[in-house]
Amino acid sequence: MFYQELDKDDSLTLHTDLYEINMMYTYFKKGISERNAVFEAYYRQEPFGNGYSVYAGLEHVIMYLKNLKFKESDLKYLKEEVGYDDDFIDYLRHLKMKLTVRSMPEGEIVFANEPLLQVEGPLAQCQLVETAILNIINYQTLLATKAARVKLAVQGDGVMEFGTRRAQETDAALWGTRAAYIGGFDSTSNVRAGKLFGIPISGTHAHSLVEAFGNEYEAFKAYAETHKDCVFLVDTYDTVRSGVPNAIRVADEMGERINFQGVRIDSGDMAYISKQVRRELDNAGYTKAKIYASNDLDETTITSLKMQGAKIDVWGIGTKYITAYDQPALGAVYKLVSIEDDQHRMRDTLKISSNVEKVSTPGKKQVWRISANTEKKNEGDWIARVGVDPRNFDSLYMFHPQYSYINKVVTNYTAEPLLKDIFVDGKLTYQQPKLIDIKKFCAANLDGLWEEYKRSLNPQEYPVDLSQDLYDSKMNIIQDIRNNINKGVGAQ
Amino acid sequence: MFYQELDKDDSLTLHTDLYEINMMYTYFKKGISERNAVFEAYYRQEPFGNGYSVYAGLEHVIMYLKNLKFKESDLKYLKEEVGYDDDFIDYLRHLKMKLTVRSMPEGEIVFANEPLLQVEGPLAQCQLVETAILNIINYQTLLATKAARVKLAVQGDGVMEFGTRRAQETDAALWGTRAAYIGGFDSTSNVRAGKLFGIPISGTHAHSLVEAFGNEYEAFKAYAETHKDCVFLVDTYDTVRSGVPNAIRVADEMGERINFQGVRIDSGDMAYISKQVRRELDNAGYTKAKIYASNDLDETTITSLKMQGAKIDVWGIGTKYITAYDQPALGAVYKLVSIEDDQHRMRDTLKISSNVEKVSTPGKKQVWRISANTEKKNEGDWIARVGVDPRNFDSLYMFHPQYSYINKVVTNYTAEPLLKDIFVDGKLTYQQPKLIDIKKFCAANLDGLWEEYKRSLNPQEYPVDLSQDLYDSKMNIIQDIRNNINKGVGAQ
Repeated sequence: MFYQELDKDDSLTLHTDLYEINMMYTYFKKGISERNAVFEAYYRQEPFGNGYSVYAGLEHVIMYLKNLKFKESDLKYLKEEVGYDDDFIDYLRHLKMKLTVRSMPEGEIVFANEPLLQVEGPLAQCQLVETAILNIINYQTLLATKAARVKLAVQGDGVMEFGTRRAQETDAALWGTRAAYIGGFDSTSNVRAGKLFGIPISGTHAHSLVEAFGNEYEAFKAYAETHKDCVFLVDTYDTVRSGVPNAIRVADEMGERINFQGVRIDSGDMAYISKQVRRELDNAGYTKAKIYASNDLDETTITSLKMQGAKIDVWGIGTKYITAYDQPALGAVYKLVSIEDDQHRMRDTLKISSNVEKVSTPGKKQVWRISANTEKKNEGDWIARVGVDPRNFDSLYMFHPQYSYINKVVTNYTAEPLLKDIFVDGKLTYQQPKLIDIKKFCAANLDGLWEEYKRSLNPQEYPVDLSQDLYDSKMNIIQDIRNNINKGVGAQ
Repeated sequence: MFYQELDKDDSLTLHTDLYEINMMYTYFKKGISERNAVFEAYYRQEPFGNGYSVYAGLEHVIMYLKNLKFKESDLKYLKEEVGYDDDFIDYLRHLKMKLTVRSMPEGEIVFANEPLLQVEGPLAQCQLVETAILNIINYQTLLATKAARVKLAVQGDGVMEFGTRRAQETDAALWGTRAAYIGGFDSTSNVRAGKLFGIPISGTHAHSLVEAFGNEYEAFKAYAETHKDCVFLVDTYDTVRSGVPNAIRVADEMGERINFQGVRIDSGDMAYISKQVRRELDNAGYTKAKIYASNDLDETTITSLKMQGAKIDVWGIGTKYITAYDQPALGAVYKLVSIEDDQHRMRDTLKISSNVEKVSTPGKKQVWRISANTEKKNEGDWIARVGVDPRNFDSLYMFHPQYSYINKVVTNYTAEPLLKDIFVDGKLTYQQPKLIDIKKFCAANLDGLWEEYKRSLNPQEYPVDLSQDLYDSKMNIIQDIRNNINKGVGAQ
């Protein structure tokens, strides 16, 4: 354990909000802890003003759920420090994860208001896992989405993840770089991520190498004498007057003994300096040497630099990526959509709100991606109750769930269910693909989207529609709740 | 290990940028890996436009450094996948952490451009630890600072950390809430943080409890029958027409059997609704019941709500705190300030830049906090080389390092050195205080600051000055570097 000095059997089982355990306690004492419940996780708005998101986090969620078990030290804490009684502690001690979990695959293109992950099983267990699941998928989905935006901005250039030192603690660096790779980055500087996930790693040297040798030429020479592949960082003292000439001098002297891949710039006016550097390299005959840039870059500055004609070939992205600087949180929520009543029937539920877009959609659902057979592009997503299969219909009526005058009838389509079984009754049945295949899957999914949904600024809204049955059911439940409130009998 | 399924002996030793190991390799091959070096970590600008920061992260840095050791699987990866040679792999295998580390204590009030943490020892080892140290102290210092701002805004009200589900992965949730506690929060919802760090935990129930029972009154009643302390979440259906009346009904029915602590509001217009709720509670005789609020709050919205006369007693802060939403990264850097030359003399170094505030300050330094004996408030910080002791002087000439016409002479002062020994030659010598004492230390430090430096908006700039000797030395090195560039001989 990382925290073994603090707690010899630390795990993520207690990585939950206290209220989850408080509710488990009430369910347990009231005899409803084992009732079947269905919760769904979804977010309400695309991050960064983007037109879609890239789903990620499932691998960590699987690790978390596989290891869900209260240890004796957890129970001791809950009993002695928090004050739960022996019956409940004993219940927790014997709690065995029995959940059925369905999820989008990682690398899937996803949209606001559709379930990304669905948890079904004993009410108390569903409640326990809420916090950690949201913690994991919120961050990783946010980051994979950011990565896809950056990948779009570099227009085919290389892009490297450099953010570890500015990440929000160590897990963010690790999983954030995995999300980067899924969303389109080529490599990371984080060696541990390379070891754990097999992501290609990249990096050469820092300013400190130059300062340690006290002389830029000698530092570059020492690096070149000890590494075949060389990218020299040229801005320690003066990029154009010192850094680039020293890099060229060393490249000349070393000749075939090194691969002089190029130079890296980490400060200054990137547009102006990169053009000067390009000219110097070309004049020296190094037309194939690349210019690497890193300095608080993100998709916006990259786009701006490209418009200014900056001569940058490879982009190193750190702080602005790893923290999702312009929107550092995705607001995914986890809502109860159906629960077993005392007659063992499933009853659909929703959370009402004065904001129409915040009202949840009741019922255990599947998300279908509808693509036109003629165009091979997506027509939209269609959400229906589990059991309703649009592959059995000849045509599909799709309408906007808030503005229902926006509608269309689709024929000659393919419908693909997006939520897959991950755990069935507590048993992991899903074979997680290799990371490289997740990355390719993501790229292929992006190919299936019209450009209008993919542009970084003001994308078109992708249709995420409800089946007529689901829409009617939602409206009916809302009306019931309102009637009850008006009658003063309390809700529903 | 958390990642034992991915790697049975995962540790943070490889949690570093590849370029650190590439530089270690060059140092090793060139025979300078064991030369004595001094690096210092500092940031250049206070986050959030604040007037100070609260230092945090040392506990995790200590855990990391104590366990710094390459495992066989690390070495196998570096050899087989990255391609380092056997000599170097063997060097890493036998690498024993010998660093001397000095640091501010956690909870210290710190300022831009002063060393927070200083690492001295074999050059290669100093380089290895850069990335993880910055990763840890950047996040935790950022968060403890945010917490202090929130604490100031609540003006003595209770404040609870609720951010786990929106944190940037699991470590951020854990260490972020520890930073919250240091900076002034009273409790957290994260149960694991409660267990690991002994932070008080808080939380009652979510909307899902109400939906699971399908009836708000029954849900509150069930909760009340199973918990002594009750805070009811009243906005599942309609706060004023349903939630609060149901809470009052249950409180009336349960009487002395519960502590009706109050109600929580998680949506809607907090200023307006809280006043209505207050009136209803008061009318029902529950004048001591508190109103808890949580809904994307931060120091700015809290201040605004207070100005609107909102009747909120306890604040639950989530997303905006745990991600430091308005500035999600602190840009601390780690710079070589001194290195042994081939005559075994220490040579001071700096990184030059076209931005004057980005030029590092050479030499191994101590930070002295100067306080006036008359006022018991801080006059400023004074940075000098290690060995220079302002306690031996009668008066101190303090001047702004960029605008030197801003200056003063201080007499009748107390000078306190802020960097403490943590590790000496690889051995941990520092006794980390208890978390509660770190929290108290932080509060006491804030008391030592004039109000002008503490206000959230446009605070006065606190003096962080260099000794005359250090200033002169910095200017001389800059001039030397410039002369060398002008002579075309490469830098320095």
